[in-house]
Amino acid sequence: MTPNDAALADLFARTAVHSWKLHLDRLDTMFAAFTDEELQQEIAPGKNRVFYLLGHLAAVHDRMLPLLRLGPRRHEDLDQDFLINPDKAGPDRVSAPALRQAWTDVNTALTAAIEALSARDWLLRHEAISDDDFANEPLRNRLSVLLSRMTHAQFHAGQIRLVVPGR
Amino acid sequence: MTPNDAALADLFARTAVHSWKLHLDRLDTMFAAFTDEELQQEIAPGKNRVFYLLGHLAAVHDRMLPLLRLGPRRHEDLDQDFLINPDKAGPDRVSAPALRQAWTDVNTALTAAIEALSARDWLLRHEAISDDDFANEPLRNRLSVLLSRMTHAQFHAGQIRLVVPGR
Repeated sequence: MTPNDAALADLFARTAVHSWKLHLDRLDTMFAAFTDEELQQEIAPGKNRVFYLLGHLAAVHDRMLPLLRLGPRRHEDLDQDFLINPDKAGPDRVSAPALRQAWTDVNTALTAAIEALSARDWLLRHEAISDDDFANEPLRNRLSVLLSRMTHAQFHAGQIRLVVPGR
Repeated sequence: MTPNDAALADLFARTAVHSWKLHLDRLDTMFAAFTDEELQQEIAPGKNRVFYLLGHLAAVHDRMLPLLRLGPRRHEDLDQDFLINPDKAGPDRVSAPALRQAWTDVNTALTAAIEALSARDWLLRHEAISDDDFANEPLRNRLSVLLSRMTHAQFHAGQIRLVVPGR
């Protein structure tokens, strides 16, 4: 039985979304291995704390909501401390439990919206490219954002892994 | 103008392959920033050397050739030192220039073969799953391997970034 072209495009989308969810699950497992106190640990001497990377990833994923045109942001309050400022620029203004909650909240909303996209939706432009530019650069679509954020998350996962407790 | 379903599937494949190539380019740039001597540096105290991760990534990408059913391996000789053994298990048996060459050679062969795949090809099974199992688990296709190896490479890129010279 050979799938037709519509089924092919659908399988592509499902494979990409499945991969996104697998990678989020791995990060969840990793963060869950740290106590709130252990989140304060630096990934290497003088480098970012795990706490900062948790906030950073929550903020970046929150920005995916408007970037993928899936809805408004939910945690814009994270930007100053976790995107604009480097780590340790000032005292922490959010608690570890609140930060964990933001991470879960963002990913729950994002993944639900992502799962509702059709194959065709994935190949539409993302918010940061104009219709005119997109006409010439069709690869700058929503899927490219998903792939780039998936690898971004794993980039930091590789760093966090260096200090996961119990290894 | 709305693309038809065949064009959609083709766009999916092109977006994924473009992303793969972008990520390889970034790794190439990163490795090029290290002198052969600097490759000996550990990513953090007591952790893997950049040299080991270069060999590890070359070996993992080399294994993608048979795993994606694109041809035989080219550098099976890397497995013992960079996949089976941990780092610093014995003296280095390959020079930095030879290791850089293997990395380039593997990725050149792999990317050429990948670019020749049609959208339909991407959704066929990979070598590590049987026809019977694949009938029930169609997401375990070649595309899933590409995405998983792309994030694997970025996982280690995040670690290497910690010691890239000049940062």
